[in-house]
Formats: sequence, C-alpha cells, structure tokens
Amino acid sequence: MSLSALCEHRPVGIVGLGLIGGSLGLDLQAAGLEVHALVHREATAVRARERGLANRIGTDPGLLEACGLVVLALPLDRLLDPDPRLLDALPATAVLTDVGSVKGTLLSCWRERLAGAGRGDQASRFVPGHPMAGTASSGVEAGEAGLFRGRPWLATPDPDTAPEAIALVRALAETVGAHWFLCAPVLHDRAAALISHLPVLAGAALLAVADRAGDDPETAALARFMASSGFADTTRVGGGNPELGLLMARTNRPALLQALAAYRSEIETLERLVSAEAWPALSERLQQAQTQRPAFLRCDPAAAARLDDSFDDAL
Amino acid sequence: MSLSALCEHRPVGIVGLGLIGGSLGLDLQAAGLEVHALVHREATAVRARERGLANRIGTDPGLLEACGLVVLALPLDRLLDPDPRLLDALPATAVLTDVGSVKGTLLSCWRERLAGAGRGDQASRFVPGHPMAGTASSGVEAGEAGLFRGRPWLATPDPDTAPEAIALVRALAETVGAHWFLCAPVLHDRAAALISHLPVLAGAALLAVADRAGDDPETAALARFMASSGFADTTRVGGGNPELGLLMARTNRPALLQALAAYRSEIETLERLVSAEAWPALSERLQQAQTQRPAFLRCDPAAAARLDDSFDDAL
Repeated sequence: MSLSALCEHRPVGIVGLGLIGGSLGLDLQAAGLEVHALVHREATAVRARERGLANRIGTDPGLLEACGLVVLALPLDRLLDPDPRLLDALPATAVLTDVGSVKGTLLSCWRERLAGAGRGDQASRFVPGHPMAGTASSGVEAGEAGLFRGRPWLATPDPDTAPEAIALVRALAETVGAHWFLCAPVLHDRAAALISHLPVLAGAALLAVADRAGDDPETAALARFMASSGFADTTRVGGGNPELGLLMARTNRPALLQALAAYRSEIETLERLVSAEAWPALSERLQQAQTQRPAFLRCDPAAAARLDDSFDDAL
Repeated sequence: MSLSALCEHRPVGIVGLGLIGGSLGLDLQAAGLEVHALVHREATAVRARERGLANRIGTDPGLLEACGLVVLALPLDRLLDPDPRLLDALPATAVLTDVGSVKGTLLSCWRERLAGAGRGDQASRFVPGHPMAGTASSGVEAGEAGLFRGRPWLATPDPDTAPEAIALVRALAETVGAHWFLCAPVLHDRAAALISHLPVLAGAALLAVADRAGDDPETAALARFMASSGFADTTRVGGGNPELGLLMARTNRPALLQALAAYRSEIETLERLVSAEAWPALSERLQQAQTQRPAFLRCDPAAAARLDDSFDDAL
C-alpha cells in the first residue's frame, strides 16, 4: 500500500526543517504527498516557504492537527527534551517517528512523556528511526531532494511497538528511496558507541595529548607545525561540536563506557607490545587493522541481511 | 650563493625517483641544475627517463661519482638499512641528505655506517632532512613539478653537523621553493610521535575494538553497516600501510612510548568522567579539543619562528 493510503490520505507532518526535515519535505511533496511543517522561528518559516520545503509551513503547532504521521526531525537535544507545547499539538491518532542518533534513551524518554501526557496508547505508535544520510550542511538551507535515495534508514522499535506503525514509517522511508532496516535499540546504541561516540573521545584525547606535548612548549609548537592531513582526519570528529559529543556521552553512557573500557585495554596492549619490542605481534595487529577497515567503509548488503535476521530473533 | 655555486657546479645526485625524488629531479632541472639519479630497477629507469625526471638516470651506482650533493630519497626502511653498494658509491666529498620521517635513529644509523665504511669525516656532512610535502601517490609516476613550493622542509642537524653542509641543503630546499626550518632530531621525533605515529595506533585500536564489538557478532555487523565518514576519517591512518606503522614504532620507540602513556592516561580520564557523569568536566575537555584543533591544521608562521629560536638554543 502507498504511504498516502497508509496515512488514510492525511498530511504528513514534519517538525523541524533542517537537513533531514527539509530533504524529507522536498521528496514527499515530489511523491505527491501533502506536507505540513512546524518550525521554531518565523524567519525559518519564511525561508522554508521560499525554498518550498513543505506545502504548509509555520510556527503554530496547530499545523500538525490533521496529520496521520509526524516526523520529529529535530536535533537530538530537542528530541530528548521536547517542548510540552509540541507534545500537546501532536494529533493523538498519529504515528510518530524521529531521526535521532541515539535510540534507547530516546524511546524511553518519549514513552514516558507520552504516558505523562495521558497518551499511553500513542506510545506504541512511536517508531524510533535513524535515517543514515548526511552532508556537512545543517539548517534551513541544507535540505536537498534525493538525500535518502539508496541510503539506509534504520528503525529500532521494540516488541511493544505496533506493527501498523512500523509499516507506515517503512512506507515513508521507502517513498524517499531509502533502504529500510530494523534492529533492537540496544544493538543500535552499542554499534553507535563503537563507530561514532568512541571516535569522538579518541580524537579529542589525541588533540589533548598533542597540544600538551608532555608540557614541552617547543615540542607542542613543532607538533602543530608538522601536523598534516593524517592528524587532521584522525581528529576531525574529536575536534567537532562539543555539545553534540557531550549529548552522545550522556544519552549513550552504558554503551560508551563499554567501548571506552575495550579501547583503553587495546591501547594498553599496544603500549605493552611497543615497550616489549614485540614487533611480530604489533605487526599482526596493524595488518588486522588494515584488513578490518574496508568492511566499515560501505553498507554491506550481507551485513544488512543479518541485521534483519537478528531483529526477528530479538522480537 | 646559488645551489649550483655551492655545489661547485657539480651535479646533484638523487637516489630513488618516487614522489620526493622525482619531484625534486623535475624542479632542480627546471632551475638549471644537472641531476643524476640512481634507481633500483631498470624498468623504473626506463619510465623515469620517459618522464624526464633527471638528466641521467640508471641503476649503476657509478652515476653518482661526480655529485657534490646526494639526496637519499628512499623509503624509511631502505634509509635505515642502506645497501652497502650504495654506501660505496657515494662520493667521499659529497654532502648527503635524506627525506625520512624519523630523524634520531636515522642520524645515528648513518653516522655509524659512514664511520664503519672509513668515512668518519663525511658523517659531519650528513644533514638529516624531512621535506613535508606529500600526496597520496608514490612510485615513479608520482613525481610532480612544484611539489615543495611553499611547503616546510625541516632539517635536524646536531652540533656535529658541518655548517657548510647545512647551508648547501638549505640552498637545495630553497631552490625548489620550500621554507627551511631547523630543529633538534629529538624534538622532531617527539612531535612526529604525537601527530603521526600515535594516531596510527589510536586508529588501529578503534578498528580492533569496533571489529570485535565486545565479541557480539550482531553488534559487529551493525557497526560495519552504520559506520560513516567520521569513522572512515578517524581510522584512515590506523588502517594504512602496516609495514610503515611498524617501522615508525621500531625507529621512534622512546617517543612513541611517551605518547602512548600520555594517551592511555587521557583515555582513562575520559572514562572516569563518563563513569562519574562529570558532564561539566567532560564538556570542558571537548570544548578544549575543538579550540585546539585549528592550530594543527596549518603551518603557523609564529610557531615556525619559535622553532628556529628553539634550535638556536639547542645548538
């Protein structure tokens, strides 16, 4: 069934018209859907209307009234601390989904908020999502047509999530050309800790150590001078937005702590090997790293198939 | 005085016509110098002649006979274990310089080899160098005109190095448009450990931890699937050439051990902060990382000036 039919021909609501929300608005309109978008500031609404990011755009939460599906396309901090007026404005019968990069905390947060707002039954229609498409851009200028085409769209429902709600969000993802995958929230967050949140701290630690340079200002000056593209790449996310790094640590703390413990242990091992001049063992580890990396550089269809299996098991 | 005059109008020799040697050959010929290049394999010589990388190119070490300056533009492993036939072929009166990325070990290695070959007096004319220009390319196709223009060319002589030899290598660097800087070998190697060798191990450790994923195959599969450009960038050098990583660890072991100890301690601190939910302190560290990074992204003239000062002190 088409997304429109699954929505019973009601509009799709989008809260937030940044990179994800704006791109979604463009693609959904192109697919013939009516899109109503709620933004925070009037200036954003004006520009979003100029860019045609949705059919109706404004700052009045009443805009969402008729929507059968609402996509919460907000930054993670606002998803985790939603405006009570937004909660009030969500149609009680709508399916809800989000786009946040941490899922376990978010699912419990929204279940709690919805229950607290006397919408306990809507909690089963909240489908946590993570469309994995990004560019370096953000804000109202960032949205672009075709952003999701061929990209993965992970969803992390749990056994309490209503199957019809999952089917509706899947139709949304597939309408914009994304590949739909399911996994358990805890798995998502463990994987995110390893490939996203730990690298932030690993890179930040590299910067701290190079900047301090054993408290020797001459070495520090020379290190800054000699640093080339290798150091720049290795520290890019570590030297990125500190608010986002902090938020990921706060909201994915247990998984991040596991990842940090494993990382500390691995660094200790490398230190021991260098100290003991255990060159064959160090060589083997460096060779393994070279062998391991390519699998992290592209979406592997075989891995994706295993994900679907693992989710079936988890349910 | 010009490079040619400093060489007493003798040819410049280049050993190896990869990225650095080939680029140097092109630029030196363009500056009107006679360049003789020694390569390892005849097939390389044929292609290098086609590309015009030097005036005379061959596999016979006798080619270097008349040279007043010889640039050893070989990979680090071959610089650290030079072919005895190459040593024999170096003109006894020539100034020697190299392009290796580790300097302390290399300087002692060459002093030892030269002394062992009965060329003790030539040891003072060996000027360790590190032209900091690179592209992703290597081999006989990689050399390009103008590679060194505006780039730093570090040299790491010590008080036993002859000032005339330093002046000659400086003229070489400036002839190809590089900025000339001096620093003590131990400083160079400490800085290289921080910005080049430690990031290799830090990235390799990230790959190991993400690949293992707490021995959970589902998390590992999902991590590979979810990894995006942030993980790719952070692990680029860690998943690079394992022979090079091993060689850097072997030849810069004391500085790398210091860097690893500081890094382990920093990771322990971050782990403690996350564990204790010490969010303001973690936030401060992430903000520092963001503030620190830009200084590592460009050659800072003020830092360079301080380098020259620090070298004067060191001498």
